Amino acid sequence: MDRLIEAINNVQNPSVVGLDPTEALVPPQVVASFADEVRDSVDSPEELPAAQLAVAYFEFNRTIIDAVADIVPAVKPQIAMYEALGPAGVDVYTMTCEYAAQQGLYVLGDVKRGDIGSTAAAYAHHLNGVAAASADGTAFDPWHEDAVTVNPYLGTDGITPFVQAATEADKDIFVLVRTSNPSSSELQMLDLADGKKVYEHVADLVEGWGAETIGEHGYSRVGAVVGATHPEEGRALRARMPHTFFLVPGYGAQGGTAQDVAGMFDADGSGALVNSSRGIIGAWKKSGKYSESMSADEALDLVAESARQAALDMRDALRIAVYR
Amino acid sequence: MDRLIEAINNVQNPSVVGLDPTEALVPPQVVASFADEVRDSVDSPEELPAAQLAVAYFEFNRTIIDAVADIVPAVKPQIAMYEALGPAGVDVYTMTCEYAAQQGLYVLGDVKRGDIGSTAAAYAHHLNGVAAASADGTAFDPWHEDAVTVNPYLGTDGITPFVQAATEADKDIFVLVRTSNPSSSELQMLDLADGKKVYEHVADLVEGWGAETIGEHGYSRVGAVVGATHPEEGRALRARMPHTFFLVPGYGAQGGTAQDVAGMFDADGSGALVNSSRGIIGAWKKSGKYSESMSADEALDLVAESARQAALDMRDALRIAVYR
Repeated sequence: MDRLIEAINNVQNPSVVGLDPTEALVPPQVVASFADEVRDSVDSPEELPAAQLAVAYFEFNRTIIDAVADIVPAVKPQIAMYEALGPAGVDVYTMTCEYAAQQGLYVLGDVKRGDIGSTAAAYAHHLNGVAAASADGTAFDPWHEDAVTVNPYLGTDGITPFVQAATEADKDIFVLVRTSNPSSSELQMLDLADGKKVYEHVADLVEGWGAETIGEHGYSRVGAVVGATHPEEGRALRARMPHTFFLVPGYGAQGGTAQDVAGMFDADGSGALVNSSRGIIGAWKKSGKYSESMSADEALDLVAESARQAALDMRDALRIAVYR
Repeated sequence: MDRLIEAINNVQNPSVVGLDPTEALVPPQVVASFADEVRDSVDSPEELPAAQLAVAYFEFNRTIIDAVADIVPAVKPQIAMYEALGPAGVDVYTMTCEYAAQQGLYVLGDVKRGDIGSTAAAYAHHLNGVAAASADGTAFDPWHEDAVTVNPYLGTDGITPFVQAATEADKDIFVLVRTSNPSSSELQMLDLADGKKVYEHVADLVEGWGAETIGEHGYSRVGAVVGATHPEEGRALRARMPHTFFLVPGYGAQGGTAQDVAGMFDADGSGALVNSSRGIIGAWKKSGKYSESMSADEALDLVAESARQAALDMRDALRIAVYR
């Protein structure tokens, strides 16, 4: 987790921009501007809308990345939004990760993968690349992620391959512990016979999974996802998991505030990275400056300006609440 | 679940072939035979091994599919094996799904996705396609899956979008309940304060998630993943989840036998689909007939012959144990 912590320290900003594009979040004139470009690239007309949207997502993401790269340490593309467009979307996911990495950002792939032993090892190639059959043994890294999110429901043998790959490639993982959504309590908040809640049991497993990988800044390569919508549990988890860095979704559009997340940081103002997606990439829609008559370039300029301002506002709110 | 049940009935075989290729499972001369073909398709030399393996996976899968299409109802490609090669692998995953569907097979995408509300809805496009921006509103289906596996850790709002998409597209989902791997007990077998185990609580949620989607054969669109390695719990779950169809991994290479899975079927010999991956697609390695001097075509013939025999053996073992 050292690389992430140093990236945060460099910009004094423990926030991450979620790159979760949807059709509604990309100005329509931007999507329309790619109609001609993609027409020749598809095999059949029915593929056209998805291909066009995929290209538009990349342009949109590049605009956001360029607008925030000097003020945030990291981006978090949500692969579901790209898979929704099929393989053309997956291509754009990897292009987005690569572009963000080229701009010096830490890339956290929100993929929430999880499977048993050998299958988890296959997923772990998201982190350590493809060494297969290469003449000189050099790994090829098609995903360009610095970390991925992982689901704990399968237990240790579903996690160990990710920890090994992360260690090998100087990368990290974040395991779901207490998610930000309303229904998360149905399973995560259940009372166990031993007095713990299910998510507390998972928290203890996570702290253990990371124990051998603690870095210079005191945190392991195995982080935890803890929703901003659960401030009290987050504060308790901070104490319970002293070597576990937190990825905190649910800030902004989902209702979490800077005060809500303050307790998830350690006494030095480290220990957590707070995500905002729609609040930043959709800020242009709330700017009051958008008009349908704008050109694609004008709309992208507004996207950039609005995203940067929203990212600065979030940074400043977190600095006040966290760094004190 | 009606389409799957009818496909099973048509061939009197409740088994599914797991298409989980790895470099070790594809005869090396098959991989080598694609060296020239892929050279011009990649942007940089480092992509070559992954691209070559991806094309070899498709040829391998097509060979298996052709060998078993008349005797099994379904195939289950495991997307992790394809993601391990990057986007080129994901392309081959969708090509495999499409080819299997064209041969009349029910395609169960083992993707184990799971996320919160709007993100789960994005993943659910695996089932209901991309309607976005298409002029006539026709959905484009890039994934070609008839069902996908889903992780329950996020709770109801992570599941509902999949159920809606499945209903809209006449497809199904299978939710992880009791997985076949050794560590699965760390979370799934925990005792809850109310006397249930965690997996039993999840089982009750799953039965509820499907309640509105029960088909002509008495099973809902929301199935459950129950490992063959847990025969007693599987038998108990069969009684506990009367409207939930089971996907049963862990047969064969992982240790489950036809006797172990018999209790996961209902009194009519329906209610479950048993998966074997390595036991079928890797049968050529145990045939005693392989030689490195074989041509690629000879090796693929052996793959086909061995897979078909293994699939027939599994079918016959299940018929004896299940249909009685």
